[in-house]
Amino acid sequence: MRVGIVGLGLIGGSLGLALRSRSAARTDSTRNYTILGVSRRSQVCQQAIAIGAADEASVNFDCLATADVVILCTPIAAIEPTVRSLLPHLKSTTVLTDVGSVKASIVETIAPLWPNFVGGHPMAGKAESGLDVAEADLFVQKPYVLTPIDSTPPEAIAIVTEIAKAVGAIVYECEPEAHDRAVAWISHLPVMVSASLIRACLSEPDATIQNLAQKLASSGFRDASRVGGGVPELGVMMACYNQAALRQALLIYRDRLDEMIDCVDRADWDAIEALLTETQAARPRFLQED
Amino acid sequence: MRVGIVGLGLIGGSLGLALRSRSAARTDSTRNYTILGVSRRSQVCQQAIAIGAADEASVNFDCLATADVVILCTPIAAIEPTVRSLLPHLKSTTVLTDVGSVKASIVETIAPLWPNFVGGHPMAGKAESGLDVAEADLFVQKPYVLTPIDSTPPEAIAIVTEIAKAVGAIVYECEPEAHDRAVAWISHLPVMVSASLIRACLSEPDATIQNLAQKLASSGFRDASRVGGGVPELGVMMACYNQAALRQALLIYRDRLDEMIDCVDRADWDAIEALLTETQAARPRFLQED
Repeated sequence: MRVGIVGLGLIGGSLGLALRSRSAARTDSTRNYTILGVSRRSQVCQQAIAIGAADEASVNFDCLATADVVILCTPIAAIEPTVRSLLPHLKSTTVLTDVGSVKASIVETIAPLWPNFVGGHPMAGKAESGLDVAEADLFVQKPYVLTPIDSTPPEAIAIVTEIAKAVGAIVYECEPEAHDRAVAWISHLPVMVSASLIRACLSEPDATIQNLAQKLASSGFRDASRVGGGVPELGVMMACYNQAALRQALLIYRDRLDEMIDCVDRADWDAIEALLTETQAARPRFLQED
Repeated sequence: MRVGIVGLGLIGGSLGLALRSRSAARTDSTRNYTILGVSRRSQVCQQAIAIGAADEASVNFDCLATADVVILCTPIAAIEPTVRSLLPHLKSTTVLTDVGSVKASIVETIAPLWPNFVGGHPMAGKAESGLDVAEADLFVQKPYVLTPIDSTPPEAIAIVTEIAKAVGAIVYECEPEAHDRAVAWISHLPVMVSASLIRACLSEPDATIQNLAQKLASSGFRDASRVGGGVPELGVMMACYNQAALRQALLIYRDRLDEMIDCVDRADWDAIEALLTETQAARPRFLQED
């Protein structure tokens, strides 16, 4: 299978490495993948070939004329303009998929332009970005969500499913809106909650206490504040492209917070113990490994 | 120096191990520590001697008659009754200190009973508790906060400071109320914020999306939810003994959260980027190693 990858950063590069290492280790019963990489920068194209993330690489879309499937690995904002430039170069049977971390707005925009489109979201990442930190094992045992709609051809879903499984991921299938609501809870809401925690701690007006708090902060603060202290562009992207689901999650979070504040106000320690017993029991359900 | 330790759990046991290993490695210029352990259970006394956390150990306070300093390592609720039973056994020069994670209420209660009292809080811990998991290195490079008041004798402060340094900790000194406000921000508030995050995620009414969210949760949710899914008794203790400072921190946190919600409502992505740029820049100030 000839697989085009547009955008050779962490995700695109890792997909290339994973599919090519899979081909290198293939037996007669497994598929051989030829990776056709596209990047705006020729230096990145050369690097992709050098490290084994692509068999061929180019700064233009001509090389994708023979692709059976093309995976869009650009930032979300670049997806639509990239697709509009790309489509004239593809044969009509080519399957198109993306790796964007929100799905409803992307599927709404791209599916009408290309019926053979399947929305996708491999849920793997690193603090760093770029081809330098790409790795073949990035997706192993990680969720890979596909969000087909009623009009998506079953053959297109089958091909993207095969690729997701080939890189070692666990494949889930759901509606684009269900994906966006689920990631609002467990990925986008935590960023806003965690960032608000950092900003609250910065609100202490007494400089001595502010300084002491900074000295005394340890693993509890470190973990609770991690996603709120990450790359700002990621948080903006979540808010911008998943506004409705994030807003709903934030409002419900505020209700839960108010319940906690109310318990503290009323000195109702039994109620706080009940709430914390509930959260202690529930948390492992979100951390199960498949 | 003869050091009494009342309560031989994780903290008491680790203090004993640390001070005794310090004595074992002593040169002529360092102090020798003899550890007198007290536990309600004779089995724990025997274990403390066996693992080297105490030189002598007893189920009653008689053995503390010769102690130069006594460290209270019981749960917070047991501190006052323990002190009232203990005092008749001490010589008047004995320095008393505790390891409770809130300070104002403890200092208010104990200082009037024993002028030679210095409030203390070694900020080290583990997910597990008990003497089985005690270790000599628990306090190395960790903060150890002392909260003397105007009436505290300087000699008493000097002795507890010496012990804190002997176990390898970094010593801070502040008023009890300043300690409680600082830990409300970086230790107690994160528990309530994190628990509310878990409860919010459990609020999704659609079972399919709830289940999907649990499947897709990864390291971001794992870290942000860790302290909210911990032992309920710890969170209750924080709320109960540090109610005023925690309440104040929660109310200011809610203001910061409302600002975030307002940005999402208004689709003001520039404002969100500014907030997240602020938190990205500020977080490292809370994570510096001394």
